[in-house]
Amino acid sequence: MGMVGGGQGAFIGAIHRIAAQMDNEIELVCGAFSSDASRSLESGKALYLDPERCYSSYQQMFTREQQQPAEKRMDMVVIVTPNHLHFPVAKLALESGFHVMSDKPATLTLKEALELEAIVKQSSLLYGLSHTYTGYPMVKEAKSRVAAGALGKIKKVVVEYPQGWLASKDDEQSKQAAWRLDPARSGISCCMGDIGVHAANLAEYVTGLEITALCASLTTNVPGRSLDDDGTVLLRFNHDAHGVLLASQISVGEENNLRIRVYGEHASLDWSQLEPNSLLMKFPNRASQLIRSGVGELAPATTAILRTPAGHPEGYLEAFANLYRGFASQVRARLAGDNDNAPAQESHLDVPGIYQAVRGMAFIENVVAASHSDLKWHPFSLLPNEELATPPQGDKHA
Amino acid sequence: MGMVGGGQGAFIGAIHRIAAQMDNEIELVCGAFSSDASRSLESGKALYLDPERCYSSYQQMFTREQQQPAEKRMDMVVIVTPNHLHFPVAKLALESGFHVMSDKPATLTLKEALELEAIVKQSSLLYGLSHTYTGYPMVKEAKSRVAAGALGKIKKVVVEYPQGWLASKDDEQSKQAAWRLDPARSGISCCMGDIGVHAANLAEYVTGLEITALCASLTTNVPGRSLDDDGTVLLRFNHDAHGVLLASQISVGEENNLRIRVYGEHASLDWSQLEPNSLLMKFPNRASQLIRSGVGELAPATTAILRTPAGHPEGYLEAFANLYRGFASQVRARLAGDNDNAPAQESHLDVPGIYQAVRGMAFIENVVAASHSDLKWHPFSLLPNEELATPPQGDKHA
Amino acid sequence: MGMVGGGQGAFIGAIHRIAAQMDNEIELVCGAFSSDASRSLESGKALYLDPERCYSSYQQMFTREQQQPAEKRMDMVVIVTPNHLHFPVAKLALESGFHVMSDKPATLTLKEALELEAIVKQSSLLYGLSHTYTGYPMVKEAKSRVAAGALGKIKKVVVEYPQGWLASKDDEQSKQAAWRLDPARSGISCCMGDIGVHAANLAEYVTGLEITALCASLTTNVPGRSLDDDGTVLLRFNHDAHGVLLASQISVGEENNLRIRVYGEHASLDWSQLEPNSLLMKFPNRASQLIRSGVGELAPATTAILRTPAGHPEGYLEAFANLYRGFASQVRARLAGDNDNAPAQESHLDVPGIYQAVRGMAFIENVVAASHSDLKWHPFSLLPNEELATPPQGDKHA
Amino acid sequence: MGMVGGGQGAFIGAIHRIAAQMDNEIELVCGAFSSDASRSLESGKALYLDPERCYSSYQQMFTREQQQPAEKRMDMVVIVTPNHLHFPVAKLALESGFHVMSDKPATLTLKEALELEAIVKQSSLLYGLSHTYTGYPMVKEAKSRVAAGALGKIKKVVVEYPQGWLASKDDEQSKQAAWRLDPARSGISCCMGDIGVHAANLAEYVTGLEITALCASLTTNVPGRSLDDDGTVLLRFNHDAHGVLLASQISVGEENNLRIRVYGEHASLDWSQLEPNSLLMKFPNRASQLIRSGVGELAPATTAILRTPAGHPEGYLEAFANLYRGFASQVRARLAGDNDNAPAQESHLDVPGIYQAVRGMAFIENVVAASHSDLKWHPFSLLPNEELATPPQGDKHA
Repeated sequence: MGMVGGGQGAFIGAIHRIAAQMDNEIELVCGAFSSDASRSLESGKALYLDPERCYSSYQQMFTREQQQPAEKRMDMVVIVTPNHLHFPVAKLALESGFHVMSDKPATLTLKEALELEAIVKQSSLLYGLSHTYTGYPMVKEAKSRVAAGALGKIKKVVVEYPQGWLASKDDEQSKQAAWRLDPARSGISCCMGDIGVHAANLAEYVTGLEITALCASLTTNVPGRSLDDDGTVLLRFNHDAHGVLLASQISVGEENNLRIRVYGEHASLDWSQLEPNSLLMKFPNRASQLIRSGVGELAPATTAILRTPAGHPEGYLEAFANLYRGFASQVRARLAGDNDNAPAQESHLDVPGIYQAVRGMAFIENVVAASHSDLKWHPFSLLPNEELATPPQGDKHA
Repeated sequence: MGMVGGGQGAFIGAIHRIAAQMDNEIELVCGAFSSDASRSLESGKALYLDPERCYSSYQQMFTREQQQPAEKRMDMVVIVTPNHLHFPVAKLALESGFHVMSDKPATLTLKEALELEAIVKQSSLLYGLSHTYTGYPMVKEAKSRVAAGALGKIKKVVVEYPQGWLASKDDEQSKQAAWRLDPARSGISCCMGDIGVHAANLAEYVTGLEITALCASLTTNVPGRSLDDDGTVLLRFNHDAHGVLLASQISVGEENNLRIRVYGEHASLDWSQLEPNSLLMKFPNRASQLIRSGVGELAPATTAILRTPAGHPEGYLEAFANLYRGFASQVRARLAGDNDNAPAQESHLDVPGIYQAVRGMAFIENVVAASHSDLKWHPFSLLPNEELATPPQGDKHA
Repeated sequence: MGMVGGGQGAFIGAIHRIAAQMDNEIELVCGAFSSDASRSLESGKALYLDPERCYSSYQQMFTREQQQPAEKRMDMVVIVTPNHLHFPVAKLALESGFHVMSDKPATLTLKEALELEAIVKQSSLLYGLSHTYTGYPMVKEAKSRVAAGALGKIKKVVVEYPQGWLASKDDEQSKQAAWRLDPARSGISCCMGDIGVHAANLAEYVTGLEITALCASLTTNVPGRSLDDDGTVLLRFNHDAHGVLLASQISVGEENNLRIRVYGEHASLDWSQLEPNSLLMKFPNRASQLIRSGVGELAPATTAILRTPAGHPEGYLEAFANLYRGFASQVRARLAGDNDNAPAQESHLDVPGIYQAVRGMAFIENVVAASHSDLKWHPFSLLPNEELATPPQGDKHA
Repeated sequence: MGMVGGGQGAFIGAIHRIAAQMDNEIELVCGAFSSDASRSLESGKALYLDPERCYSSYQQMFTREQQQPAEKRMDMVVIVTPNHLHFPVAKLALESGFHVMSDKPATLTLKEALELEAIVKQSSLLYGLSHTYTGYPMVKEAKSRVAAGALGKIKKVVVEYPQGWLASKDDEQSKQAAWRLDPARSGISCCMGDIGVHAANLAEYVTGLEITALCASLTTNVPGRSLDDDGTVLLRFNHDAHGVLLASQISVGEENNLRIRVYGEHASLDWSQLEPNSLLMKFPNRASQLIRSGVGELAPATTAILRTPAGHPEGYLEAFANLYRGFASQVRARLAGDNDNAPAQESHLDVPGIYQAVRGMAFIENVVAASHSDLKWHPFSLLPNEELATPPQGDKHA
């Protein structure tokens, strides 16, 4: 694989590299780690890359890699830039014949996401999106149990993602904070675009339901910010389910406490990222079950992705690596001549793809529009919302 | 004290009796436990009461007790009937010269609550309301820390109260369920009237803030019900704080998982009734504090109400008893000639009173109205909402 | 009931009073709260007792109460003095015709315990011992499940009771610490006599097994102390089970973290006093069960003693009250003419009695002797150990 | 690196491979995965290795790799065979000029460990031992806090490692169980040799103390076994500390619940592998601290090894990778000409080495000898115990 972004000092690039290579199925062979050529080179050398393949721009990388002999050429591109570059890089990568694994959110706008969807569909290439939390074994287990009907009809979903890292003005000093709070690089939402979209994806992933309407209240809690740093969204799903999504970046002291609770007719599930190897299943009239990674009968999709025995906790990097393992297997299937365009679903090798990319961008735009509105409920729309404040002028994709 | 309601088989009556008598400050001397005279007598005899003082109606009880000599006469009335009787019983008790401790919600409607407020204010009598959760030591601790500024300015409050006991049609068989789901006896809301109002009270109690506007979505999740069994409420508080309230009676497997999280500028607090002797305090840049009953420096109001040493957990009954201890001390102050009408505040002896009664009924009416509305936000009003579906005709106070 | 000890400022007396009266079955009518007559009177008046029945010595109390008319006379004596007085007070109470509920440990020595056993057996009176932890609903549940064979044959028991309250020299200032560390008032062991004996009782209670041999290492961790403040005991039980008991008063920061884990062939149980309403049951090849008070199918003995619905936690005082409820029901049975001498077993009304009293004192003496020995294993003996350092001379029962 | 053992189906080999390569500092280049040549080849091919470097014996591997050009030759050998091969493989590897990272325990006997120690000391090569748990960030934090004096003088250590995987006869079917229970391949202890030694190492690692005497009771709980499957060890440390070690493989339902509690004069620490990103620090008179990976001020050695931000849990594989990262940095230092023989200590790059190897084997032999003895206490000896039942005759290193 080749990487765009993720130079020295960047956080998510290193995470992707560890995750991608954990199962020895994917190798980093080149990168355009920074738009600063020397910084890109330095970053690549620290990763033991061939200096010839440390590029100063993604455009250069795609061109040069196309010229590599097939057995040496990168197969896929990993995009770990700020949001505004996700689309142009993904677009060019696909047009250059490379599979794409992109950090989320997929693009800066829903319009871009729809355009990207068209490109992916026209190509015979794969597109993956890092909704990392879907890679946790106990999330797979939750999804499997819901799908198998263990909860009966789903009635209610509560999903929350509180963080505290942007709680004060002082927290804005970091590089991360700078671009997250900048509409030109981040898009029309900070909190919902960064973590709300993860929570929404997780809710749909685990339940197999889709959001059909929402009511939103986003707030900005620190003076001087132009984007939301907190929000609550009331949700309606298809099949008569309803729910709530809470996301926050100003909840002081919270780490990355993503948690989902799903209530069905016959049972409920409770999973939290802070203790990801546990899944609590509750029933109306009997003792709860504390389901643990590696203990007892688990769904095949769960067991298939466990790397360690019970009691040896796996974490975020392993969850992330599960996405890459799935993606690698899909890439290998393509190389072996399987051109089915749909990513594998309902298995341990599933990877969020362009469908989730579009829904994620739609979620962001729907939530922001609903928050601006005086009306309570808004249907979930897959059409770009032209009225939304668009990012400031200038070449935002520079 | 004398009790109205709470005959054999009733749940909350026994709870009140244990709580009231735990500290040896209050003695049950009479009761109108049931409108069925023989059932009332049976209930009273099982409690070792003088059969002469087991009354067949609250009216009879008040009349006869007025005739008792002062040293023998009951001082206060405890009301543990279904909701629709709270108001008429309280009204007559006050008019008969007895202090009143009422189960919540205070009345069936906000109009009644306002009328009751007028009666209380005109009398020199005390009125207490069983917002039991305010009696937990760690809730006092949370309130004390917020009041002392340990969190800085409050930004966000998340309060939730999920239960699962009304999740299915089958759950409607119990006596409890029958009246809770009956508008004539329960009022215009089931879920919000029973537990949402507790959550709202707790949020205001801990933070010292007041709700100023809300957006609500109530749902009914089992066919055939006329009242809500689940709801989410977005909240705005004074002083620029905001929040969310989740209450549910259809969250399968949940017990009485009341939990509140308060996020301020400098720290946050997290308390859950399931582990009531712990309070978690989190900070932006240092380790969290796990505050425990009886350990280390606690607020005076906390320490004053602890009955057991650290590590010997206290529970719901002790919390409830703390309300009664406060009420008993206020009654004693009255008997000693102190006629200050305001219940003690900011101390371990505080008891929710008529002010909380009115706000609670307003909360219920505001939430139901907001849920019916297509508009998102509604100011929190203390005026009775005449348009709300009123309970069915007939003598609902029979 | 009448109380010996427990005057103002004492801790355990107030606990006993709340517990005894919680269920409205027992009434405190008199007391010898202190050997100082005026202090006893003050203590009694604060409890609203008749000043005539606030006695200056237990001898006086027993004599005077015998002279009371039957309907007014106390039925039982509660002993909440330091350890050295347990035996003489219990002895005289029984000889004076009163039932006895004693704080643990039962006596100062095993020899006394055996003498007390003879007295109890010759009388037609009841003797109860406050091994409070046996009163927790989830402890009953654990015992019921073991007895029903849900764990199969028991293989291993781990019971621990760490505290930190005697960790430093400074901690010795309190009245509690003073007598606990004084052999004349406490006996030959501090840590094992105070809490080790609780842990041993709990292990035998839950498993239905009995200790048959032990290996002990007691330590004294603060200079100047003559008694142990920490100890570990390896245990052998009948039926081929084995185990470990850890008790400590110098484990800084620990509250009263009594915990028991029982491992059988087919399942294991894990209960901790810090979260007493939960019981974790684990299995070899399936998900653990999180058993909660009031949720699902529980043993009849568990359900019978619950006072609150699921999710409204009960605590230490309720557990204690369960012992008193059992004792009251036994007293009432005696008054009704049932003279069976054996306390009820295997039910929610069981109360630890003279059998547990003797085993407890034997445990203390066996552990201390084993700790002094260079040999590893020692059979559990019910004979008094004459060689053990006896408490200092002087009238220790003054 | 080259690997000995760890062919397809083996558990710990895959773990080592992921851990070694996680940070992109070490590359697997060859292996002798099985003594069956075709199985070794298959295993290596599945790992994308050059078939020429998939060897049929470790002897062959060492000889052939010596012949490789320096830039291609493996630098280090990873040993993941059953215990009986650890010594001969390590010995030959060192004699062939390769650094060694060995799975624990280091050898089959203390005698071998001492011989290995001499070999390591004579060489200029590195020897690492996989006491994996020392690689957890919160274990480093615990060690750092103890070393910095935050707990004061250590008084007591409780370390436990319960598992349930060998609880029944049926559990003996697995390949793992077969060799663990076979003295010829496992050594004189199963439970203590497999996990007790981890617990002992962790206790010494965190506290910086060393065991000086012990009292042990090992048991065999399933008929037909010749080795222990459960044991408790009373410990005395230098500097007047004492403690207890519990290890078990028959504790039904337990996963790998390694936990350590350290009690000092001023504070205590509590860490459990099941929630490895938390560390609880308790104090005598103030609220506990819940220390979390990535939150607040942590020791430099902790921060240095974190790969993910707070709230994105790291697990066992990351802990393991921290050992490899340390080892890689030491190897690199050697290649750069630094010939200091002692592994780095007190830093995030420390790796358990030959010193721990010897102490670990001594622990196993001391515990087994003490368990056989009728005497309680035994000094911790570093001399091989010739009297211990040695493994059965025959070439146990075949």
